[in-house]
Amino acid sequence: MNVSIETILQRKREGHANSSDEIHAFVKGVVDGDISRPQAAAWLAFAFLNGLDFRETVALTRAMVGSGRRLDWNGLSGPFIDKHSTGGVGDKVSLVLAPLWVELGCKVPMISGRGLGFTGGTLDKLESIPGYRCDLDSARLRVVLRDIGCFISGQTGELAPADGILYALRNETSTVPSIPLITASILSKKICEGVEKLVLDVKVGSGAFMKDLPSARRLAESLVKVGNGYGLDTKAVLSDMGQPLGLAVGNAIEVMEAVDCLKGGGPGDLFDLTVRLADHPDALETLRSGAAYERFCAMVAAQGGDVAALSTPTRMMGPVEEWVLEARQSGHVIACDAIGVAKAAFYLGAGRSRAEQSVSPGVGVLLHHKVGDHVEQGEPLAVVYHLDSGLERARKELSKALLVGPELPSPRELVLEEFVS
Amino acid sequence: MNVSIETILQRKREGHANSSDEIHAFVKGVVDGDISRPQAAAWLAFAFLNGLDFRETVALTRAMVGSGRRLDWNGLSGPFIDKHSTGGVGDKVSLVLAPLWVELGCKVPMISGRGLGFTGGTLDKLESIPGYRCDLDSARLRVVLRDIGCFISGQTGELAPADGILYALRNETSTVPSIPLITASILSKKICEGVEKLVLDVKVGSGAFMKDLPSARRLAESLVKVGNGYGLDTKAVLSDMGQPLGLAVGNAIEVMEAVDCLKGGGPGDLFDLTVRLADHPDALETLRSGAAYERFCAMVAAQGGDVAALSTPTRMMGPVEEWVLEARQSGHVIACDAIGVAKAAFYLGAGRSRAEQSVSPGVGVLLHHKVGDHVEQGEPLAVVYHLDSGLERARKELSKALLVGPELPSPRELVLEEFVS
Repeated sequence: MNVSIETILQRKREGHANSSDEIHAFVKGVVDGDISRPQAAAWLAFAFLNGLDFRETVALTRAMVGSGRRLDWNGLSGPFIDKHSTGGVGDKVSLVLAPLWVELGCKVPMISGRGLGFTGGTLDKLESIPGYRCDLDSARLRVVLRDIGCFISGQTGELAPADGILYALRNETSTVPSIPLITASILSKKICEGVEKLVLDVKVGSGAFMKDLPSARRLAESLVKVGNGYGLDTKAVLSDMGQPLGLAVGNAIEVMEAVDCLKGGGPGDLFDLTVRLADHPDALETLRSGAAYERFCAMVAAQGGDVAALSTPTRMMGPVEEWVLEARQSGHVIACDAIGVAKAAFYLGAGRSRAEQSVSPGVGVLLHHKVGDHVEQGEPLAVVYHLDSGLERARKELSKALLVGPELPSPRELVLEEFVS
Repeated sequence: MNVSIETILQRKREGHANSSDEIHAFVKGVVDGDISRPQAAAWLAFAFLNGLDFRETVALTRAMVGSGRRLDWNGLSGPFIDKHSTGGVGDKVSLVLAPLWVELGCKVPMISGRGLGFTGGTLDKLESIPGYRCDLDSARLRVVLRDIGCFISGQTGELAPADGILYALRNETSTVPSIPLITASILSKKICEGVEKLVLDVKVGSGAFMKDLPSARRLAESLVKVGNGYGLDTKAVLSDMGQPLGLAVGNAIEVMEAVDCLKGGGPGDLFDLTVRLADHPDALETLRSGAAYERFCAMVAAQGGDVAALSTPTRMMGPVEEWVLEARQSGHVIACDAIGVAKAAFYLGAGRSRAEQSVSPGVGVLLHHKVGDHVEQGEPLAVVYHLDSGLERARKELSKALLVGPELPSPRELVLEEFVS
């Protein structure tokens, strides 16, 4: 290393920009072990408080991409496209959008993650399909992409290993909510997928990482600017995460809701957001036709999943019990707090607080109403699918999250803003 | 732990003050290992940039004191007093001041450190006396303090272990020059010595940690305020470190210069600063009398050192070679840059860059002049004592550091300011 870690740390500490060489040396040193974890943690803390400018964020993204291999679809015809969501409650858009894009003429090499904290991960949801494999190697990924047009699988460990290390360290050291660090983390992973176009769904609201519009906007701008600066055609949509997306929050029940949507139905907000993110003139018609469902089944089968289980709730969910939350009064649903519903699902076992924990596929919360719906006293507001533990805490959370009152709440837009370069 | 590390980190990250409970939980967690080194590093980085207020600094000091044992001189009569210097070049004041204070009726339980970086440590200097032991256990420390009135020994590992961990981590993560962190580190160590009074010598100039007067002043104020806030009678003196203190910079040669001073002679600046730091009406007369020399010898003997060696340069220094730097022109010494002289001594082997390295007792730089002295062309400016390596780099540094010119430089005060609560 030509640049010393002392210099790199001191410059960031004093509020200067690190040069591209310094940032590359930092990332290489972190991966090689020449830079210790405490040194990396100190840099992250300095970067958190003093920021990283556009050039530094591009350099960090580039260095993280360069820390491992980049998938290469040479010989396959594109366009190669992917979507990334900053994480929301009930967000099963990826399951619908990947096959939909294939129907619209694209290829979708989607590397996704597991959930950590209250909100679930796409891989956790897909693994509720018996047999579904998320650990395809790169040769198999290529075959599935070639034959089916899309895959949804997990990190191979070869892609952006620096991001894996720094992401874990950010979780450990309370340096997660930094816009440049999030930007580099998201984009490096997506660039390693070998895509040309990226659509970002930046969630805003109680159930999202970004709780307010200004911070979500800054993240969206940063992602679009750095992504395009890197040569990736990048768009971002800001979407509401005040209430869950769709009605199902869990694992198996989210897959089943995605199947409804793939068949041209399902909750309106899920359908509409998927069409909007697809960003294609034929998206609405194609999704409505149900053609994407066959594509989804082909992908599930190619990844080892049992397609027949998709239409058999007992096989997807296993032996769960039901508890029904009823409306205590008639009126309108005035709130359905996304984080509250997420916590309820978490306490039931749908999520994990540590990476090594497993999730229960069958548990979760199936809402019966969206905000603004009219309900009668005694009518079910939600069904809770539970196993042996967590019901009490889940009930409490859900009762706080789902509020019924006399007045019709003012409607809130699902898609709030859109960012293009 | 009642408080989570996530909360502690987030609060400091967001610029809030940590509560005393949070700071105690942090220090305890660092020592117990419940808080990881990267988490501790992130907290140090946040504290570096966002600062710690007076109450937090007192709490940090208290928690670090509480992380180990505190020496207890119950049954011995005081007053118990110590001096701490923030580190300078050629600073051998401790060797003179400890026995001088005993002659003035005090007891001096001095726990000191080794050098790291360009400037030397008191223990490294004393260890050039054959047999001198710096690893006395607490029972032996008590005996020496009772019988002789002073000791100068090293950390026992039982005193402020949290400081040991955090100090090493600050070195590793470029979070050293933070006034509250320095304050807590210095004071916690001194409070564990069981003293009632503390005199601080805050150095300012090229050879010091604090390069300019405003930052040295802030450190002095912080030390005095927090020390007195803790109930320790604390004073601070700001002294010049633009040129080395005295004429000797090394290990054995510094001990020999201290011996000259103990006998009532030696360089004027060393003598004057020692008297000033002694802060006692009889200090000048007592030092001039040479009485402190016998006390020093008694301490050396009690710590295993060979007193006879003190007056035998060849035994102190071993087989070193000499090289003389001569004045290339007649004139006045207009600069004798402390950090340049320190680097020269460092390259000769008088210091260490890593804690596990050993130092060479005999090497060093013996200046023949102070700034302002008149010199004739060809006259020796300094003698370099060297072994087989480092002479070339030392010569270069020394030639740059020692400047002779026609004009008499304006005199600079040795003691710049004094701070009392």
